[in-house]
Amino acid sequence: MTNAQRKFLRSLQQKKIRKQENAFLIEGRKIVTETLLAKSSAYKVKQLFATQEFLEKLESKNILNSKVKEGVEIILSTQKQLSESGSLKSNNAAIAVVEIPNVEVPKKLENLALLLENINDPGNLGTIIRIADWYGIETIFCSEQTVDLYNPKTLSSTMGSFLRVNVHYGDEFEFLKLAEGNSFGAFLDGQNVHQMSFPKKGILVIGSESHGISEKLGKEISNKITIPSFAKDTESAESLNAAIATAIICDNWRRN
Amino acid sequence: MTNAQRKFLRSLQQKKIRKQENAFLIEGRKIVTETLLAKSSAYKVKQLFATQEFLEKLESKNILNSKVKEGVEIILSTQKQLSESGSLKSNNAAIAVVEIPNVEVPKKLENLALLLENINDPGNLGTIIRIADWYGIETIFCSEQTVDLYNPKTLSSTMGSFLRVNVHYGDEFEFLKLAEGNSFGAFLDGQNVHQMSFPKKGILVIGSESHGISEKLGKEISNKITIPSFAKDTESAESLNAAIATAIICDNWRRN
Repeated sequence: MTNAQRKFLRSLQQKKIRKQENAFLIEGRKIVTETLLAKSSAYKVKQLFATQEFLEKLESKNILNSKVKEGVEIILSTQKQLSESGSLKSNNAAIAVVEIPNVEVPKKLENLALLLENINDPGNLGTIIRIADWYGIETIFCSEQTVDLYNPKTLSSTMGSFLRVNVHYGDEFEFLKLAEGNSFGAFLDGQNVHQMSFPKKGILVIGSESHGISEKLGKEISNKITIPSFAKDTESAESLNAAIATAIICDNWRRN
Repeated sequence: MTNAQRKFLRSLQQKKIRKQENAFLIEGRKIVTETLLAKSSAYKVKQLFATQEFLEKLESKNILNSKVKEGVEIILSTQKQLSESGSLKSNNAAIAVVEIPNVEVPKKLENLALLLENINDPGNLGTIIRIADWYGIETIFCSEQTVDLYNPKTLSSTMGSFLRVNVHYGDEFEFLKLAEGNSFGAFLDGQNVHQMSFPKKGILVIGSESHGISEKLGKEISNKITIPSFAKDTESAESLNAAIATAIICDNWRRN
């Protein structure tokens, strides 16, 4: 790995540079392997910085050659170089430079989709993507203010699920139109999700961690829903966190 | 605030010292106020380090005098002192030193309880306590290896719910006996939670983030359950995170 390459990898920690270069980093043994092996993924690895040991493993599994044929550039690297170039404290395997895919926004929904309004925390976004993967949700819409998918912390908390869920950034009001009346959002005075039957397709809107769904977007949501609390005490928990609420609503949606 | 007091507060960041002193810290405006006002709480504030402005607010709400009468020692502090003594980056309100209560382990269960086996992450423990509060679960049993409740990060992620949920540490096998046959744990080959009806009382066992429920404890669990996945793809998410799984199972339990 040259100094210029190390600088390039480090620069991709910044969202601005990721946009400019149309690329981002995947780091660590498990997720790099999963990305290389993903069959139907939109994600194309451009460069693979890897230790001798990691490359030998790939070779023994007959992966290395096919990747070289597909045009992946291989750069032998030391553990120290990988740790210095990426966001992981220690990395004894690999960093992949991956092209940001250009996935078209669907013109019509055929399934449940999520719309995230200004989710701030990369861990929460990653967890929500993992939940979407579990519940067979292929599409997540995000307001422009939502934290970046390609933030290393987001990617790491998806546990690989970002490979199977399409995340689109844009105008939340435009996205919401795709619901065609079947939009749902959690509010204090909504209908009990335990007593509802949900449609096959529609959009579930999730508000930000600190403010919930904004008043302006809330006005455009056709169905107000509520996760019932079973607390005896009136002092009890005011809310559930954004990822937890997403999971519970998706579970109720899918059981129908 | 004296130097000795600052040192004392700082020392309470360590679990060892918390045990020794039988005390822990609550930090920040919202949660300190909530702790002072909690009606039925087992938590007794011993010392309140607070800014002039925070004390004036308490006085204007007629809280300060009654707290002094109850024996709370008040120590006027500056923002700088609070920030230097606690775990928050900035704290313009208060730090309370609170006695660790001695809550007896129930001899018999009357309700759903949780048993956590070696949950490592303070954020996950805090989130699980918040979920318990939402679902009216008063008792959480923890194996000795589970992260400490009084870790500042745990407390902060409970969002105040620790005031209403009793957390007991001890031998997980002993705790499990209280289930009297009504113990439940998530496994790959368990019964679908969407098709079950749960008993009123029992214990839901949650395994650690990285290893799930241990084989040894798993053998003692009477009911294996599974959260069904709706992913089309066989490559899809292998699991949900511990707090997410807890929330979904509690929601299914309570809807019965």
